[in-house]
Amino acid sequence: MKITSRNEDYPQWYLDVAKAANLFEYSPTPGCITFLPKSVTMWDRIRQTMQTKLDTLGVQNLYLPMLLPMSFLEKEKDHVEGFAPELAVVTIGGNKELEDPLVVRPTSETLFCDFFKNKLQSYRDLPLLYNQWVSVLRWEKRTRPFLRTAEFYWQEGHTLHETRDDADTFALKIHDKVYIETIRELLAIDGIAGKKSQSERFAGADTTYTFEPMMSNGWALQICTSHLLGQGFMEGFGVDFQDRDGNISHPWYTSWGLSTRSIGGVISSHSDDKGLIIPPKLSEYRATLLPIYGKDNEDEVNEYIRSIAQEIVGGDNEVPVQGEYFRAMVGPKGKVLMDLRNVRLGEKIGDWEQSGYPVRIECGARDIENNKCVIASRISGQKEVIERSQADEMIAKMHDEGQKTLLENSRKRLEENTVACETIEELGKAVEAGKFALYEWNQNPDFEQEIKEKFKATTRCIPFE
Amino acid sequence: MKITSRNEDYPQWYLDVAKAANLFEYSPTPGCITFLPKSVTMWDRIRQTMQTKLDTLGVQNLYLPMLLPMSFLEKEKDHVEGFAPELAVVTIGGNKELEDPLVVRPTSETLFCDFFKNKLQSYRDLPLLYNQWVSVLRWEKRTRPFLRTAEFYWQEGHTLHETRDDADTFALKIHDKVYIETIRELLAIDGIAGKKSQSERFAGADTTYTFEPMMSNGWALQICTSHLLGQGFMEGFGVDFQDRDGNISHPWYTSWGLSTRSIGGVISSHSDDKGLIIPPKLSEYRATLLPIYGKDNEDEVNEYIRSIAQEIVGGDNEVPVQGEYFRAMVGPKGKVLMDLRNVRLGEKIGDWEQSGYPVRIECGARDIENNKCVIASRISGQKEVIERSQADEMIAKMHDEGQKTLLENSRKRLEENTVACETIEELGKAVEAGKFALYEWNQNPDFEQEIKEKFKATTRCIPFE
Repeated sequence: MKITSRNEDYPQWYLDVAKAANLFEYSPTPGCITFLPKSVTMWDRIRQTMQTKLDTLGVQNLYLPMLLPMSFLEKEKDHVEGFAPELAVVTIGGNKELEDPLVVRPTSETLFCDFFKNKLQSYRDLPLLYNQWVSVLRWEKRTRPFLRTAEFYWQEGHTLHETRDDADTFALKIHDKVYIETIRELLAIDGIAGKKSQSERFAGADTTYTFEPMMSNGWALQICTSHLLGQGFMEGFGVDFQDRDGNISHPWYTSWGLSTRSIGGVISSHSDDKGLIIPPKLSEYRATLLPIYGKDNEDEVNEYIRSIAQEIVGGDNEVPVQGEYFRAMVGPKGKVLMDLRNVRLGEKIGDWEQSGYPVRIECGARDIENNKCVIASRISGQKEVIERSQADEMIAKMHDEGQKTLLENSRKRLEENTVACETIEELGKAVEAGKFALYEWNQNPDFEQEIKEKFKATTRCIPFE
Repeated sequence: MKITSRNEDYPQWYLDVAKAANLFEYSPTPGCITFLPKSVTMWDRIRQTMQTKLDTLGVQNLYLPMLLPMSFLEKEKDHVEGFAPELAVVTIGGNKELEDPLVVRPTSETLFCDFFKNKLQSYRDLPLLYNQWVSVLRWEKRTRPFLRTAEFYWQEGHTLHETRDDADTFALKIHDKVYIETIRELLAIDGIAGKKSQSERFAGADTTYTFEPMMSNGWALQICTSHLLGQGFMEGFGVDFQDRDGNISHPWYTSWGLSTRSIGGVISSHSDDKGLIIPPKLSEYRATLLPIYGKDNEDEVNEYIRSIAQEIVGGDNEVPVQGEYFRAMVGPKGKVLMDLRNVRLGEKIGDWEQSGYPVRIECGARDIENNKCVIASRISGQKEVIERSQADEMIAKMHDEGQKTLLENSRKRLEENTVACETIEELGKAVEAGKFALYEWNQNPDFEQEIKEKFKATTRCIPFE
């Protein structure tokens, strides 16, 4: 399909890139999308990477119900105010009207509080460290696939600690060691780390830590937040414990989440007018292999392509990928995708460019004769003829370099488009030019409101540095 | 906690075992439970094992929305009749009454059909092989943790095929190679494989394949089903394609699911009056290590326990497990759990028995002196003193034997309690004795109804063999 140019119409470009890459379909359920296998595979990779980090911190996974009593939300004043307009409400269950309606979780703080209440007696039970990988639902009218949809997938971590300090330290550890590391190293996206201003905090939080990358048009994108929650939840649900001095105290509560919005970040951060670019570490397939068919040599070319695929993955497990044209070769060194359609090479290359997989390999009759193949990088555009035996090594090299290039580009964009401003006029100019403006501010909310109205700019983050 | 004896009160025994093992908590959401980390870990293991098998078949994961338009359900007559009484209905979204109410998915056939409609043009696009790992919700009044709850986790596979034969073959492959293999090899549960009778089929199916294990009280438990669906769905949603002869045809549809009910199967199949027994292959921890503290030697015993733990797992990554008393040691050879509470050994052993982990190791002052430890199997009850250097090997042996024993016990129970009946009187007697009755039947539904009323017995399965 044709992709709108990024400079011409950024939102349309974003949609075209995601659609052409087969990341989603629109759904008949209002505000929702279907997450196609490609985006699910990315999410699984993000999940795996984060899970390994969470495991070493002692965080355990559980599942609380997807529906929660409406009355629960009302136990924390700020929280219910924040979420009330976005709720999907179940009023009928098993053909009967419900006395206490249930809401589809927009987030699960209130259910966790109820759960914690029965779990906690003494300071020796602390810390309690839980997480769940689920989807949540927030009614949205204006949606944008991955960036803003009614239902989205995320992890939500909920932890209790003995002291405010312990809780704050833990929230920061999640922020630094789990979120920012994953976003930089796996997603190849850089951003500004800091705190949210009071007006931009999570409904019910004392402190919200955030990481704000800059998309390729200068938009800020909040991918993850970690909250040190106020005592409102603990009071509302009566969660307490016997502390070291024998007194009854409220524990300190953190919650933190990273969502499939991160996939939106990948799309908008790295892609170009040809289509999606997937950071190599996030890519399901190490390469796409394109056979070039001549007259009556389909079998021969396919055999050659298959043997190269086997060398690259170190195995010969061939698996169909929906329908009869696409096949995956799977082995201990990963997966490659073979595009066996008998169409023009140009069409195959165009589709590969839109697919975003990091490397392509082409082979035709002449390559077979010379025991060679053509290799090309989606990120650098580099293209060369190599010995077939070099393919595996060359892919690894292109991945390494590509992953680094994407992170560097993201970092450069951030640096070049972040402006330290001395005056409000400078701030206005920077925002108008689509840049991040740094401005020393005394955290007066009136001023924040004024800037918001005047320049249509939001306070994204109070940077640590 | 005290566990009710199995012979005294089977349902209460089941609940006590699951509760004492920390598999679930009751939830404030009607009919729902909280899946605690231990059951989530089991489900993850089941998921991993099945995913590997699904990958080699070319099945891809996606996510369709959790809410679906009520009007969709009505497009397949049998389907809506089957599910209507069990629905949770969202009538309000974003503070507004919805024109077309949404239901929380009880299953996703109708959404898949809508999805397939836009995906399929020619026979070359077939087969389409999709799956999702999600939770579903069916309003239930009488619940039993894992066996029957309103919300439960499952995978639901949905595939389209060119011919009825292709579809049937695929449904059977899932049944045999994915489900039965996983249930036998991982869960150590045997059962009878066959088809459901017409009255017991899935709402909208032509054929339903089932696998029916026998629980330790003679109950049958349907853990998984694979359906060859009728053409009703394809007609209702207008899903068709151009076939090899250029005609427009409906494809053939299969769907198949295995749920967290399988965890209920594990609980009720293997456990005893002391508590849960987890098949070693399904166990997160290879062993529990219990230090025996004497006077003022806590540090010394802990050091010894830790060094044995490190030998067993081949690593020294120590991770807290909620609060301060339990620690996990993690390495390339797996995980062990250390119970560092300073309580009576008898209490620790009792808790380990209720926990269901397959092996325990105890060490006290005398063991340290002699470089030994005590090892015990939860499955065989075998207990002996061994050299500490033998621990790893001995655990592996106890696992192997234990896994085999559990499957054999399950097989034996099935054989000993399945009775071939020649007459209706014999059938009645077998059912009354809590056994499976085999009876040659001409598939006349009136007879089935008669048996149901007379003996309170259901037709579970028309066996292949």
